[in-house]
Amino acid sequence: TQNYRITLLPGDGIGPEIMAVAVDVLKVVGKQFDLKFEFQEALIGGAAIDATGEPLPSATLEACRNSDAVLLAAIGGYKWDSLPSNLRPEAGLLGLRAGLGLFANLRPAKILPQLIDASTLKREVVEGVDIMVVRELTGGIYFGKPKGIFAAENGEKRGVNTMVYTESEIERIGRVAFEAARKRGGKLCSVDKANVLEVSQLWRDRITQLSQEYPDIELSHLYVDNAAMQLVRAPKQFDTIVTGNLFGDILSDAAAMLTGSIGMLPSASLGASGPGVFEPVHGSAPDIAGQDKANPLAQVLSAAMMLRYGLDQPKAADHIEQAVLQVLEQGDRTGDIISPGKNLLGCRAMGDSLIKA
Amino acid sequence: TQNYRITLLPGDGIGPEIMAVAVDVLKVVGKQFDLKFEFQEALIGGAAIDATGEPLPSATLEACRNSDAVLLAAIGGYKWDSLPSNLRPEAGLLGLRAGLGLFANLRPAKILPQLIDASTLKREVVEGVDIMVVRELTGGIYFGKPKGIFAAENGEKRGVNTMVYTESEIERIGRVAFEAARKRGGKLCSVDKANVLEVSQLWRDRITQLSQEYPDIELSHLYVDNAAMQLVRAPKQFDTIVTGNLFGDILSDAAAMLTGSIGMLPSASLGASGPGVFEPVHGSAPDIAGQDKANPLAQVLSAAMMLRYGLDQPKAADHIEQAVLQVLEQGDRTGDIISPGKNLLGCRAMGDSLIKA
Ligand SMILES: CC(C)[C@H](C(=O)O)[C@@H](O)C(=O)O
Ligand SMILES: CC(C)[C@H](C(=O)O)[C@@H](O)C(=O)O
Repeated sequence: TQNYRITLLPGDGIGPEIMAVAVDVLKVVGKQFDLKFEFQEALIGGAAIDATGEPLPSATLEACRNSDAVLLAAIGGYKWDSLPSNLRPEAGLLGLRAGLGLFANLRPAKILPQLIDASTLKREVVEGVDIMVVRELTGGIYFGKPKGIFAAENGEKRGVNTMVYTESEIERIGRVAFEAARKRGGKLCSVDKANVLEVSQLWRDRITQLSQEYPDIELSHLYVDNAAMQLVRAPKQFDTIVTGNLFGDILSDAAAMLTGSIGMLPSASLGASGPGVFEPVHGSAPDIAGQDKANPLAQVLSAAMMLRYGLDQPKAADHIEQAVLQVLEQGDRTGDIISPGKNLLGCRAMGDSLIKA
Repeated sequence: TQNYRITLLPGDGIGPEIMAVAVDVLKVVGKQFDLKFEFQEALIGGAAIDATGEPLPSATLEACRNSDAVLLAAIGGYKWDSLPSNLRPEAGLLGLRAGLGLFANLRPAKILPQLIDASTLKREVVEGVDIMVVRELTGGIYFGKPKGIFAAENGEKRGVNTMVYTESEIERIGRVAFEAARKRGGKLCSVDKANVLEVSQLWRDRITQLSQEYPDIELSHLYVDNAAMQLVRAPKQFDTIVTGNLFGDILSDAAAMLTGSIGMLPSASLGASGPGVFEPVHGSAPDIAGQDKANPLAQVLSAAMMLRYGLDQPKAADHIEQAVLQVLEQGDRTGDIISPGKNLLGCRAMGDSLIKA
């Protein structure tokens, strides 16, 4: 038996509901694959603010550090939107990324044939789309200094943030991306704004240099504005994309929306060593929280990514992904992905159906 | 008779061909509306680099300053891509924007019923889409300092750019956007990343404050990642969008691509006073340059925007826009927008057809 300590961060809104389903699924898969999960729950985001006044209590970060992987659901909600930014739920997420050194964010955007009609794009444009965005997650303008709101000479306010990358930061995310491309279609597109930004010129130079170590990978470069266009124009051209923190935030969401069903998309955030964090791409959906309406599949697929990338249990991961495809094949749908002729299920019922599958 | 001095900047690639069509159209419209155009041509981009070694010779900036409006075609090409960035064609464009103080970039993305099938999105999703992106153009990370590639403490290189906005910069672009929204559907969506960036918090605060002066405009805010998603998910929700330089670069291109035909889209760049610059959204398309294949319609529509926003001749602008709709209605198409059953025309023939219309 393999033993794993998993920290669960249910967070806010629909978080606890979808987390409950993922945990049930993990327990069943654990039995089948002889894996034992020791779950511990901790507070983050709005839930943590309400209980402790802080979006990321130090006990939470400590618990995460002492575990083999972290499964996160979703954070945030209107309730905490007017707090000062360092006390908002998002600050907890940024603190977790920084605290665990999670510099690599893997965000797959894959069209599932069963849900292709959910896309706002024409079938022939999105059929077969399978993109992996590798986003740098602990650098760039999210963390660069100086940052803040300062007084300008003439007495008015001046807002400042700094986009910074060092060569070693670029290199380590580059390696993750080249390796990911190698396991996928062998194509890597690096996205920057090197025609305007010096930080992007360094990015492009370093990625180009690194590509000599990966002669089997076909490397291309796009400016970020063009990449946003190309995702809409012809998304099938992309295999793996690597980019900085801010561009990755924007492009991974645009890529996700090509599928039309962000309730289906998981993500993984990994460091050089230590536990990774696995979470759905969607938000905490406070409007439907507690109503048993949420789609738990992205959370369940995040648990699968945890097995694959965090615990090196690819077979157990495959097993979960197969079950998700099977329930979709059966016609089971939550409200966000319902279409005529399919079975509308609540969050828990979807979980039960998965467990049967 | 009204007299106007117009500086023409044909630039690179297909630039000269499409500019020739726009000039012909302006001459005809001038006769009909009793406007006299005095055209002077100047060098920019790759053409200027080849002739003078600089992407924006001072004579060009001087000529632009002394005119009533500037009509620009397109710049850049593979040929100049390996030059150092301050000597590349793009540097000429950035220099022109800064030199003329063009802080407001208006980028319409409108679906024309005649070309709706060119969109990669489903008809029902894009039918009626009519978005105006108001992008700040002389501030933000494009111009903020410090910027450059520096040596870090450990000897490696460190790339740095700075995203900066002052209150007055935000206010002046905000005013342009609120005014634009007032002439359109009365809705303004401000896009930022205020959950992470301080510069965006200042942006959001200042835009919110300003909205008190525009009680008739319905203001909303979106984070840039969500905005990129929403453009793909439900573009009809947008009327006017206001955002900073970098986010505007990305989102205006994404919005443009929703139409499926960027060969149709014009733009205007305006300052507080002095001449504006009017140019198509598309690039210089070096692969088809000199082959009489280019679509001149975005250039012609840029001339219409010049009449409307630069010279205050809305009737003449309407007239050109009507002619463009009419040739499309007739079924005239260049290669980039051709579909079965339509008439394939070259660049010049499209110009002739427009002039007849
Ligand atoms: C909530 C926010 C801080 C976060 C980000 O910008 O990174 C989110 O958009 C994401 O993509 O995970
Ligand atoms: C060519 C480049 C410098 C420019 C920009 O980024 O502003 C272009 O993409 C644009 O949108 O006009």
